[in-house]
Amino acid sequence: MNIKPLGDRVVIKMIEAEEKTKSGIVLPSSAKEQPQMAEVMAVGPDIVNDEKKKDQIKVGDRVIFSKYAGTEVKLDGVEYTIIKLNDVLAVIE
Amino acid sequence: MNIKPLGDRVVIKMIEAEEKTKSGIVLPSSAKEQPQMAEVMAVGPDIVNDEKKKDQIKVGDRVIFSKYAGTEVKLDGVEYTIIKLNDVLAVIE
Amino acid sequence: MNIKPLGDRVVIKMIEAEEKTKSGIVLPSSAKEQPQMAEVMAVGPDIVNDEKKKDQIKVGDRVIFSKYAGTEVKLDGVEYTIIKLNDVLAVIE
Amino acid sequence: MNIKPLGDRVVIKMIEAEEKTKSGIVLPSSAKEQPQMAEVMAVGPDIVNDEKKKDQIKVGDRVIFSKYAGTEVKLDGVEYTIIKLNDVLAVIE
Amino acid sequence: MNIKPLGDRVVIKMIEAEEKTKSGIVLPSSAKEQPQMAEVMAVGPDIVNDEKKKDQIKVGDRVIFSKYAGTEVKLDGVEYTIIKLNDVLAVIE
Amino acid sequence: MNIKPLGDRVVIKMIEAEEKTKSGIVLPSSAKEQPQMAEVMAVGPDIVNDEKKKDQIKVGDRVIFSKYAGTEVKLDGVEYTIIKLNDVLAVIE
Amino acid sequence: MNIKPLGDRVVIKMIEAEEKTKSGIVLPSSAKEQPQMAEVMAVGPDIVNDEKKKDQIKVGDRVIFSKYAGTEVKLDGVEYTIIKLNDVLAVIE
Repeated sequence: MNIKPLGDRVVIKMIEAEEKTKSGIVLPSSAKEQPQMAEVMAVGPDIVNDEKKKDQIKVGDRVIFSKYAGTEVKLDGVEYTIIKLNDVLAVIE
Repeated sequence: MNIKPLGDRVVIKMIEAEEKTKSGIVLPSSAKEQPQMAEVMAVGPDIVNDEKKKDQIKVGDRVIFSKYAGTEVKLDGVEYTIIKLNDVLAVIE
Repeated sequence: MNIKPLGDRVVIKMIEAEEKTKSGIVLPSSAKEQPQMAEVMAVGPDIVNDEKKKDQIKVGDRVIFSKYAGTEVKLDGVEYTIIKLNDVLAVIE
Repeated sequence: MNIKPLGDRVVIKMIEAEEKTKSGIVLPSSAKEQPQMAEVMAVGPDIVNDEKKKDQIKVGDRVIFSKYAGTEVKLDGVEYTIIKLNDVLAVIE
Repeated sequence: MNIKPLGDRVVIKMIEAEEKTKSGIVLPSSAKEQPQMAEVMAVGPDIVNDEKKKDQIKVGDRVIFSKYAGTEVKLDGVEYTIIKLNDVLAVIE
Repeated sequence: MNIKPLGDRVVIKMIEAEEKTKSGIVLPSSAKEQPQMAEVMAVGPDIVNDEKKKDQIKVGDRVIFSKYAGTEVKLDGVEYTIIKLNDVLAVIE
Repeated sequence: MNIKPLGDRVVIKMIEAEEKTKSGIVLPSSAKEQPQMAEVMAVGPDIVNDEKKKDQIKVGDRVIFSKYAGTEVKLDGVEYTIIKLNDVLAVIE
């Protein structure tokens, strides 16, 4: 089973807190909007087919996104978030 | 009798919960916006005639969409939802 | 006497409930936005002269639209609704 | 003295109730937005010089418009309404 | 000293009530938005250099505008209003 | 030290009240939005490189702007306001 | 580890208060929106690849931005802000 995001959306999977700590990223829990870290599982066709966007994000990238953006879906027991490219803030390398 | 959606709308039919469980998808009932799973019954002309959109969705596809989007209609005893393509989040394969 | 809608508007006439039941359509009275069924009486010039729109709707079509859209007018004792094409959801065949 | 509307505005003059009854139009006083009937007195330059708009409305036309749209002005004792073309719903013939 | 409005703005000076009565215009004091009458003192460069706009308004024109639009400025003891062309409703001739 | 505004912004410095009185401008303190007078210290690249905008405003110009627009910054003890060109109402000559 | 901002975003790092005082900038703590000073750490691809934007901001620039804009992220113990270019007000030289 496979999720193919439509338009300029991406499907991402949250990275667990322990893993985040290991990787050196700590996302602050302040009163301001809290970003989240995730891995890209699928990229929509309006990104893949856009000369400017296709090099900015790809499957396997680790990304930071706003936790208030996107829609959560559970598929075969795993939780994913479907989010617009515009709500992905940055790629971590 | 037939529903032909206008513009970039699609007509979808909800997939029952039992069927969803069988297929391995579980949609969480959290406080956040809950997505829904449905089958595409008809696709509007602005999708069919658009080079970029026509390959993204077709009759028979199983899709995830936001439950707050679209308008419900009952036709010959069956309930459908008429929804804009932009409110369809992803296709499940 | 004749109503000619301006721009991309259409003039529609509500179809009575009995007639709707006969035709097999039942529009649910839930808490969500309730769509309505009507017949198209006139189509505005920005639809007729648009290559993409002119084939989507024509006089005599039966359409579903949102009941919160459009403006009601009574002409020679008959009630019509003037509505933008974008608020017409689908054509029923 | 003369009012020349700017942009895509038109100047209209309300048609009295008796006259409306004679002509067979009755505008319902429901809780919904109430349209009004008026005669076109002047048409702005962005309508006159637009190939698509100039044939849709002209001086002398009887039109239906939303009563919440436009601005009222009294000139030499006569009340007019200055309204954008987009707020004129239809022409009555 | 001189006020040169930027963009598509105009500088206007209110016409006194007595003068308005003489000229036959009476602006109603209803609960609805009240238009005001003024004389054009200066016209911005985006109007002067626009083929469609430059013939619609010029210095010396008497105009009707919404009293809620624009910003008031007092210069050498005289009050002016700086307003966008789009908030000027009509020219009176 | 130097402030280079980005995009279509300008950096302005308020003109003191005494100076304003001398120059004959008095800005009313009514309940309506109060404009302010200032001198232009720097102009952003999207203005300088725009054929239509570059002649409308330049360093040294005295301008009127809305006091609710822009962001104040203190640099080497002097207060400046960074504001979008669109919020500058007029140039005073 | 590296943060690559997407689209027209930049990654910036706050400049400490003592350093700001040394450099002569004092940002007032009034009731109005308070700008902040920071150093640019990374610039997104939609800026680098845009002829008009690429010369306006680069890594190492000191910038002023609105403190209400952007999202904070802590990476390897250092706090960064990811912000859209449009929310950066000016470069300090």
